[in-house]
This record gives sequence, structure tokens and C-alpha cells, in this order.
Amino acid sequence: MTAATDAAEPLVDALHGAVTGKVIVDPVSTERLSHDRADWAPIGTPAAVVVAESAEDVRRVVRLCFERGVPVVARGAGTGLSGGANAVDGCVVVSLERMDKVLHVDPVERLAVVQPGVVNDHLRARVAEDGLWYPPDPASSPWSTIGGNVATNAGGLCCVKYGVTRDYVLELEVVTGSGELVRLGRRTAKGVAGYDLVSLMVGSEGTLGIVTEVTVRLRPLPAPRHTVAAFFDSVVAAGDAVRLVAERGLTPAVFELVDRHCLEAVDAWKNMGLAVDANAVLLAQVDEQGSAGEQAADGLLAAFEDSGASWAGRSADQAEAEALFAARRLAYPALERLGPVLTEDVCVPKQAVTQMLGRIDEIAGRHDIRIANIAHVGDGNLHPLLIVPTDDAAAPRRAQAAFDEILAAALALAGTVTGEHGVGLLKRGGLSQELSPAVLDMHRAVKRALDPAGILNPGKVFETAPAAG
Amino acid sequence: MTAATDAAEPLVDALHGAVTGKVIVDPVSTERLSHDRADWAPIGTPAAVVVAESAEDVRRVVRLCFERGVPVVARGAGTGLSGGANAVDGCVVVSLERMDKVLHVDPVERLAVVQPGVVNDHLRARVAEDGLWYPPDPASSPWSTIGGNVATNAGGLCCVKYGVTRDYVLELEVVTGSGELVRLGRRTAKGVAGYDLVSLMVGSEGTLGIVTEVTVRLRPLPAPRHTVAAFFDSVVAAGDAVRLVAERGLTPAVFELVDRHCLEAVDAWKNMGLAVDANAVLLAQVDEQGSAGEQAADGLLAAFEDSGASWAGRSADQAEAEALFAARRLAYPALERLGPVLTEDVCVPKQAVTQMLGRIDEIAGRHDIRIANIAHVGDGNLHPLLIVPTDDAAAPRRAQAAFDEILAAALALAGTVTGEHGVGLLKRGGLSQELSPAVLDMHRAVKRALDPAGILNPGKVFETAPAAG
Repeated sequence: MTAATDAAEPLVDALHGAVTGKVIVDPVSTERLSHDRADWAPIGTPAAVVVAESAEDVRRVVRLCFERGVPVVARGAGTGLSGGANAVDGCVVVSLERMDKVLHVDPVERLAVVQPGVVNDHLRARVAEDGLWYPPDPASSPWSTIGGNVATNAGGLCCVKYGVTRDYVLELEVVTGSGELVRLGRRTAKGVAGYDLVSLMVGSEGTLGIVTEVTVRLRPLPAPRHTVAAFFDSVVAAGDAVRLVAERGLTPAVFELVDRHCLEAVDAWKNMGLAVDANAVLLAQVDEQGSAGEQAADGLLAAFEDSGASWAGRSADQAEAEALFAARRLAYPALERLGPVLTEDVCVPKQAVTQMLGRIDEIAGRHDIRIANIAHVGDGNLHPLLIVPTDDAAAPRRAQAAFDEILAAALALAGTVTGEHGVGLLKRGGLSQELSPAVLDMHRAVKRALDPAGILNPGKVFETAPAAG
Repeated sequence: MTAATDAAEPLVDALHGAVTGKVIVDPVSTERLSHDRADWAPIGTPAAVVVAESAEDVRRVVRLCFERGVPVVARGAGTGLSGGANAVDGCVVVSLERMDKVLHVDPVERLAVVQPGVVNDHLRARVAEDGLWYPPDPASSPWSTIGGNVATNAGGLCCVKYGVTRDYVLELEVVTGSGELVRLGRRTAKGVAGYDLVSLMVGSEGTLGIVTEVTVRLRPLPAPRHTVAAFFDSVVAAGDAVRLVAERGLTPAVFELVDRHCLEAVDAWKNMGLAVDANAVLLAQVDEQGSAGEQAADGLLAAFEDSGASWAGRSADQAEAEALFAARRLAYPALERLGPVLTEDVCVPKQAVTQMLGRIDEIAGRHDIRIANIAHVGDGNLHPLLIVPTDDAAAPRRAQAAFDEILAAALALAGTVTGEHGVGLLKRGGLSQELSPAVLDMHRAVKRALDPAGILNPGKVFETAPAAG
């Protein structure tokens, strides 16, 4: 099956002959499968979409495209926020949504073997049956797939204590740029036999290989959490509290910030009665067991009070805590009701959070763009949400200028242009500001080494051709 | 300073002119700096050893060697066990031992910036002053350097709960194969801007770059530990206990196995009165705080008793626990008194530990080689120690055969040929059994991409030329 196919055969005919999955060419369906949720990124027109049924399907598509020099763009659920899954003109989009099985859960080794199309929350529910936990929990977890999480090295609320997707990937089955199916990594707890090609693949946004199977590490389900919340008169004061928590050596399992813009939008939409007299809310949870959990919650409470919270308290009942977290989860859709939202994803050192929040406020004012803030604030990972009213023709230009200035401000504070959403198309300019030309050249060299024909998601993350000069 | 040097100038003269550090050429000194502790690996003769004083020294050496096609072998303290730091003929050895400063400790961001020659224990002591902890703790920690730990992705006793070196490296300064000084990674808690070149460098054993600065992630110092020990009549019964601990979802912070051969050797040497009537001892520690710690210790005790321990108990005082751990630490030098020791480092799934220990016993008997076992058993990472008596001329051949069979047995049990020591020279054959030809080709492609002249530690980990066929 690795023999060259007839390159003169039309691409779509060849795809039909090569795969067991569906080959879609009607423009309405292909358009729907041609982009993620980054509204501002350019979208190309694919030649076809293949809904892969197996690793062998993926291998055959890539092999066929390798022989013809046709680009291949992999997609999961299309929940990305950087344009990483957007089609490029003439490409074959490979949808992995139908490869959605949890193949194996091993409670002794604490691992699960899954197909890439498994939805994050489905995996979490499945392993919970065995008393196990898959920590990475992007806000998209009800819809996003593990394959997409691996491609972007997805983060989430639990990262602040439990790390990101890369920390949980043990082994990958991958189709390489030349259409070979390989296994990378291992299932043992430790192993140093050869280069860490697994970590290289994780977060490479489909530019180095297409993942067809993932073995993830699991943890025991943690103890029930204590929630501590606090209200602050200013976003900047909340940033100071973040610093104090870090200084005192406290490690919450979840540590989020939600600002007044978000709370107001959620309340206007859902009428939840979030009559919060605050410009920023900090939401933290601790999950140490027994007396240690009590102590950790008390420690957070004291830190919030000591940094000038207008109110701080431990949530006595689970429902109250749930309402505050629901507001955090609903912030994005609530804001989208006000206009298209341009989502930022900078990450800065913890001690720079206050400064960064101040800079965002200043940028918002100067460009007359409403910017709401939700943040995985314990990680310094901020999500300024730029709201672009549709009735203001000049708003998109102002928003883009604000977006670019936020990236520059994060870099000036020793931060990064993307904490967890990935570079895709939207942050390519930011990446080239963040990395030195020599490091970008290393990226291109690695790309050429593993995708010699340059067919895997070309033009994403960085321009493939070296920069002039 | 990047202009080409005069390639006609003799290498040693050029080195003298290029660096501020010492250039050593006398054969007695260069021999001492030409190998690690893998007695069985071949050692080449270097043209010179450069004791680097700065990243700029390293950059100049590599640049000069790049222009002349001369191999460069980096070394830290030379405590490696796979021959990874062994000289190749005509190379320049770059010693990083003098670059031994802790540059910066940041308690809020929980990170430290260090030069590669900092000794592991020195870093641990320094950050403890700020209430912080650097977890990776290879047995060589009193001597081995962070640079060497990064090159081999060193493990240790704490890995079972806290992970390995790679999990703690945030940012690296590296000299590439073409002699460029680059910074990889970032200091923020999260970040997905570009490929994970940091993880690629970690564990690459000096074949992809030479590390000149390391930023490591730190944790708060953990709570004092509870120690639980148990004696078993057979090594295999101890393996069963390991499985039961995993099945019950317990996560010790340290979980070690020491067998009778080790205890006897330590007692014969140190006369510690380790009158242990057991064929295997399990040593575990838990570090949960407060009542959770008590519970975790009780849970381990019950698991040991339920799996047939002849004795199990919680160590009431710290001194008693210390004596048992001292025996574990002293096992290797104690065994070396009996003859040269060939150190194995396989890692298998936790549920295969019992089977693997049985296979080792069988291999020892069949080849008439005494094999002692110490193990990071909670990780499935076993260190069979093959003792090769000097008064038995046929012993080296028998030991080599046993060594090879242990690797094959580990692979047959879905394990890996090296859990934490690295491939170096000793495990190259094992690596090519573990990885498929396609994955080995990916390694070679990455090597060519980042070290186009093939000068960085050539011939280590894998043969650079592709395998025939």
C-alpha cells in the first residue's frame, strides 16, 4: 500500500479510491469544515474534506498528498482560536472527529489510549468511572478533541497546579509528512531512549505530523475542592493579590480572574443575580486532602484580605461556588452577544500581572475598544477579550491595533504572545517578534526535517520560507 | 566575532586564541576528562580539553570546530553511566564544570537560573534557603551537574511523584551545532509560541546543542515525610506489592526497592547492623501534609501487609529511616568492592515489575552472574547491577550476554532500555531494537537539522549514518 499512486488521476478520485471514510466536496459542507473559531484569520478553499475512519485512512491521504505536493490540514472539532485549522487553498482537510473512541483505560499504569477525535469531557467522564482524572481542561472541553488539544498543547483552569496537555502525553501514533505511520514515546513512567519527539509533536499545530492515537497519563481523582472568592475594587488590586499568593508559596488548583465587563455581560444575558460590587473577582480552589485543604483555603483567604479585597469568603456550599464558576465559563458567549470578540492569550510572569492588566486598560482606553478580562491568573495567562461592535466601521482597525499592542506589551514584560491557544495564523507576527531569527531558523530546519515536502498545514505558526536578511 | 577563523592555524593554537578558559593538552589531564563512569564503553583520545569560563567560550569552541569539522564533546562532572561524555578521537572536550554559578533565584516565579556546571545538591541547598525545592534527585546528586542532568534528562528517587529533569526545565541557553548562541523556551508558567525545542534538547546527550544556561522551575519545599518500610521473602513478592500500591491509587513521593545482595554488601562494608532477614526491602515515603500524610502512610502499610510482607512498619524516628536510605545510597559503592559493576537501567510498566524481576533472576542464574537489584520501583525503573569478578576471565563475556538479555526482556514486557541513564554508547544497540527504523530516521533528520556538520557528540545515542535497507 506504500507504492506510489497514479499522480495523473484527479485528486478527488484518488481520495475516493484510497480511503474508507467519507470524501466531501460539496462547497457548503467543506466550508463548514474549513475553519476554526478565529473569525479574523484568513480561510482558504479546500479541494476536499476527508472524514478519516482510521489511522490507515490518514496515512493514505497524507501519502497521496505527499506524492502530489498537495497541502494537508488536520482538524478536530474546530474550536481553535488562532486559525490553526483553517484550510489553505487547494488542500485536503482531514477531519478526525469520527475517530472518537476511548480504546483502553489502565487503572494500574494510570493511562488511557484514545483516538484523536475523543472529546475532552468524554475522556474525563470515562476515566472517572475508574477513579481517575485527566487534568487538562480547556474552556472548550465540552466540544474540543484530544487530538486538537495535543496539536495546540491546550491548557485550562487546572494548569496552575497540574500542568498542560504536554505533561500528560506519553505516547503518540503519528502520520509523518511523508505518509509514514510511526509510534513515538512509550508507556512506561520514565524513559530516555532517544529524542523527545512526543513533546516536539505536542503543540506543533499539525505542521510536523498528524496524530492518529494518543496515550495519556492519568492521575487519581483529587479530593473535593474548597472554593475561595474575593472581590476587588480594581483589576490592578486583584493582580497584587496574585503576587501575594505566589510570594506566600500557596498553590491553588484553580486560580481565575473575571472582571466587571464579564460579570455584567453574563448577568445581562442569564439574569443570574450576580450583583457584584467589584471591578474584579478572583476565584480560587484548593484540593489538598483533609486538614491540609482547610489550611490552604484559610491561607488564600488571608492573602486576599491582606491585599485589600473589598470582600473575601470561603464558599460554604457547592452551589454558590458553581454560580461563580458558571459566570466565568459563560463570559465568552455572553460577551459575543455584544459583538465579535477578538480573543487574546498572552502569558506574563506572575509578578507582571498587575502591570499587564494596567497596560491592557490603558490600551483599551487609547483605542476606544472595550476589553473584558478573564484570566488563568495564577499562571499569568490573560485572555483580554476585545469586543468589536458591528455598528462601528472603524472598530476592526482599532481592535487590531490594540491586539498588536497587547502582544508587544506582553513581550516587553518578558511574557509570551500565546499561553495556550497557539500561534496558528493570528499570532505569526507575534511569534517572529518573540523568537530570535536564529531560533526561527531552527524551527524551519525541524519542519523541513520532518515534513520534507512542506505539505503539513503549511504557513501556520511561521512562514516556511526563511525571512529575508 | 562570527567571522571565520583561519582554518590553517593548528587547532590547539586556535583554541588558545579563542577562549578565556584553560586549554588542556597534556595526556594525563585530558585522559581524566575523557570519559564518564561507564567502564565498558570505548574511550577516544581528544585533541584538547577546553575548560569553558563562559557561554562565549563555548560558542567560540563550537564555531571553530564547525569550521574545521572537528567533533565537540561536552561534559559536566563525568558521572554518567552510559558513555555519553566519552571523548571521540580528535575531538575537543568542553568541560562546563567551572561554569558553576547559581545566577538568580526568584521565589515569586519559583524559578532559578543557573550555569550548567552547578552541582545538583548545591542548587538544592541554595533554593532551600528560600523555602524552595528542585525535585530531580539522581543518586549522583552530590557530584553531578545540572548541565549533565539536562543532557541525560536525569531522574532519581522523587520522580515517582514529581517527575524528571525535563519537567523542570523552562528555558535554555544553548550553543547550536553551527556555533550560534540561542535562547529556547521561556520563563512564564505557560507558553505555546513555537515548537518545544527545550524538551527536544533535554535528554539529547549533547548531540543537538551544548547547554550554557538553564532556567529551572522550583516547587515549595514539601512537608516532612513519613517513611514506611517492608521486608519480603522474595523479590517477586515485593514486585506484587508495587502492583497493589498502584492498584489502590496510592502515590508515594519515594518508592524504592533494595535486595539482599545490596544489603549484605553494605553491611559487610559499613557494618551498619542491617540484620535484615529478607530478600527484598521496599522503602517508601509520603509527603502529604497533616492528616493526609498519616492516611497515606497507613495506606502503604496496609498494602505491604496485604501483599505478604514478612514485616512492615512505619519508621518512628528519622534516624531509623535514614539508615535504610543510607543502605540504598551505599549499595552501588558497596557492590563495587566485589568487582566492576555493569549498571542496567531498564524501565517497565508497573504491572510488569514482578515478571521483570523474575526474568533478571533467571538470567543471572543461567549466566552465572551475580545480579543485585536496586530500583525506583514505583516507576518500574530497575537498576540490575551486574557484578563482574576480576578473577574470572570469562565473566565479562557472560555479563555482556546477561546485559543484552535484560534489555531484550524489558522490551518484550513493553518497557524501555533506559529509564534515566541515557543511551550514550552502551545502549545504542538497545535503542535500535526499541525504535522502529522510521523513528530512527526521524532522529537522524532532526540531528542533521540542528547539527548540519555532525560535530556534536557524534556517534552517541545512534549511528549518524542511516542503517542499510
